Amino acid sequence: MAKDDGTQSMAMICWSSDLDRVWPVLILATTAAASGLEVDVFFTFWGLRVLQRSDVRITGENWKQKLESLMDPGSTDRLRLGKLNMGGMGTKMIKMLADEHKVSSPTELLEMALDLGVRLHPCQMTMELYGLSKDDFIEGLQPPIGAASFINMAAEADITLFI
Amino acid sequence: MAKDDGTQSMAMICWSSDLDRVWPVLILATTAAASGLEVDVFFTFWGLRVLQRSDVRITGENWKQKLESLMDPGSTDRLRLGKLNMGGMGTKMIKMLADEHKVSSPTELLEMALDLGVRLHPCQMTMELYGLSKDDFIEGLQPPIGAASFINMAAEADITLFI
Amino acid sequence: MAKDDGTQSMAMICWSSDLDRVWPVLILATTAAASGLEVDVFFTFWGLRVLQRSDVRITGENWKQKLESLMDPGSTDRLRLGKLNMGGMGTKMIKMLADEHKVSSPTELLEMALDLGVRLHPCQMTMELYGLSKDDFIEGLQPPIGAASFINMAAEADITLFI
Repeated sequence: MAKDDGTQSMAMICWSSDLDRVWPVLILATTAAASGLEVDVFFTFWGLRVLQRSDVRITGENWKQKLESLMDPGSTDRLRLGKLNMGGMGTKMIKMLADEHKVSSPTELLEMALDLGVRLHPCQMTMELYGLSKDDFIEGLQPPIGAASFINMAAEADITLFI
Repeated sequence: MAKDDGTQSMAMICWSSDLDRVWPVLILATTAAASGLEVDVFFTFWGLRVLQRSDVRITGENWKQKLESLMDPGSTDRLRLGKLNMGGMGTKMIKMLADEHKVSSPTELLEMALDLGVRLHPCQMTMELYGLSKDDFIEGLQPPIGAASFINMAAEADITLFI
Repeated sequence: MAKDDGTQSMAMICWSSDLDRVWPVLILATTAAASGLEVDVFFTFWGLRVLQRSDVRITGENWKQKLESLMDPGSTDRLRLGKLNMGGMGTKMIKMLADEHKVSSPTELLEMALDLGVRLHPCQMTMELYGLSKDDFIEGLQPPIGAASFINMAAEADITLFI
């Protein structure tokens, strides 16, 4: 619900690393922040990969973690459509369309989100599962948190979404 | 939160054109409206195709938009399961089961939603991406809106869902 | 919104039987309940299969229902990743990683949820579609409900999520 000073807030879970899901996450986050809402986004499961630096490729400490990082490459530059990807052609086509219609890319939107004060929270448990450390992520993130912290934020938020 | 007169409301995002996601969107929308809630549904990304008229097939102005409309045919009559579609067999089977158990089809539910006063909002940005105009859609829709308008609705709603 | 005694609540829809979606449902449900929130989870569509007993395999009364139960085997023991399943290898790998990092399995989390007082509601309509009866489910569930009952719960909840 709205805070005493009237500020409203949104708490979202970014669960996916699919381009077609990350795009709405970042468009909603930046739009809400630009409209004056406080915005928290919890990056968990596949979604944690969105925060990966583009110059970091293979991550993790053991073969399972390294293999997973190869299959799901991460970073906003390398996201693929979850539907109609068609070996990359669908992803390329939608990016061309977005570009022609001046829709910002996920990489641009993520920077914009940080500029607008959106709080980006990596999931601690997923970091451990994947063997990821803070050095694998872009700068400007909040400290890693667990599900309990997200629940606390969500319980006070006006808008809660799982994307 | 509930309005001063006690009316409650729900704001949903219909993001997908998969039969198994559109069905819950429309069942929840009609059920909530029948229970007295005000309901807003924002059709964006793949979900915008749900509002397409069944007699409109190829849409858009350039080859990319036309190709996309062929891959993702749109209209409530042509939705396919996102899982276990199995070349259409899964979709056919679930439709037969739904029919036997008197579960309304998405096309019937969409009409019902309009009759019950559910507000259906097409996403302006997705319309531009796909090259869709109002003439490609069914009648009775609200004017196209952007993410900021949806955020405003959601911030006042009692239930917010991304489907 | 919070009740008069200050208790907060969460209402979730578990729509999927994919391991990577059921895991967050159950982690969020148990975490919220452990934090003192009242938690309701509505298991519908593919998600209903999560509640299936592990010793029940083929379900339903006619060939369509039986075939569906074969394609989507159900029970928390048999869930598969919706992404990067790779013929079961991805699912096996993520389960190994989870085990090494002491992340509870869905089966353990479901038991924990019941112990913590999370209310698990099977969807009446989906039960009829699939031809499932109470005997096909684990013990400790709430009576089957429809979408209208879920809407009532969600309208009073502080957190609403569709997963």
